[in-house]
Amino acid sequence: MSMFDNISVVKKANVYFDGKCVSHTVQFPDGTRKSVGVILPSTLTFNTGAPEIMEGVAGSCRVRLAGETEWKTYHAGESFDVPANSSFDIEVMGDPYHYVCHFG
Amino acid sequence: MSMFDNISVVKKANVYFDGKCVSHTVQFPDGTRKSVGVILPSTLTFNTGAPEIMEGVAGSCRVRLAGETEWKTYHAGESFDVPANSSFDIEVMGDPYHYVCHFG
Repeated sequence: MSMFDNISVVKKANVYFDGKCVSHTVQFPDGTRKSVGVILPSTLTFNTGAPEIMEGVAGSCRVRLAGETEWKTYHAGESFDVPANSSFDIEVMGDPYHYVCHFG
Repeated sequence: MSMFDNISVVKKANVYFDGKCVSHTVQFPDGTRKSVGVILPSTLTFNTGAPEIMEGVAGSCRVRLAGETEWKTYHAGESFDVPANSSFDIEVMGDPYHYVCHFG
């Protein structure tokens, strides 16, 4: 599905790492929040508060979760889980990586 | 109003100028589309097809419409109109400029 329907969107974007990552927050009727975003070519480290599921929408990325040595590649349609109060390294090369971030 | 309610959002972002401008398209129940986006510090030239109204959400920018010599500054809460099949130069300095683009 290429769209989320019947939601609210926060007009102001979330800008991280000088714009290497930009997302917009969307809110569902049940109060659940997700973000739709894009990561430009770069290698970044994100910290999590709540657990996250990162779902690829377009492009691909390589990810290394905290405490792991192996990088894994994820394409559009694939997801990876990040535990609460953790972090992950993400590398995007070539085309931007578009994602949906599910919290909770 | 900081959010749009009861809308759909396209999950994949629109990425322009190597990511200096990133937006997400939102669709209203009547089929109207707008985009919510952000421009990072840069000077860019945008071309329009349909006429646009650019509404500032946060930050500020300087704008010079096609055929004009003067740059005008626009802050959050202010808007500027761009005719169809035209262009404008926009300069963002310091903080990102967040906007809603109304087509039509």
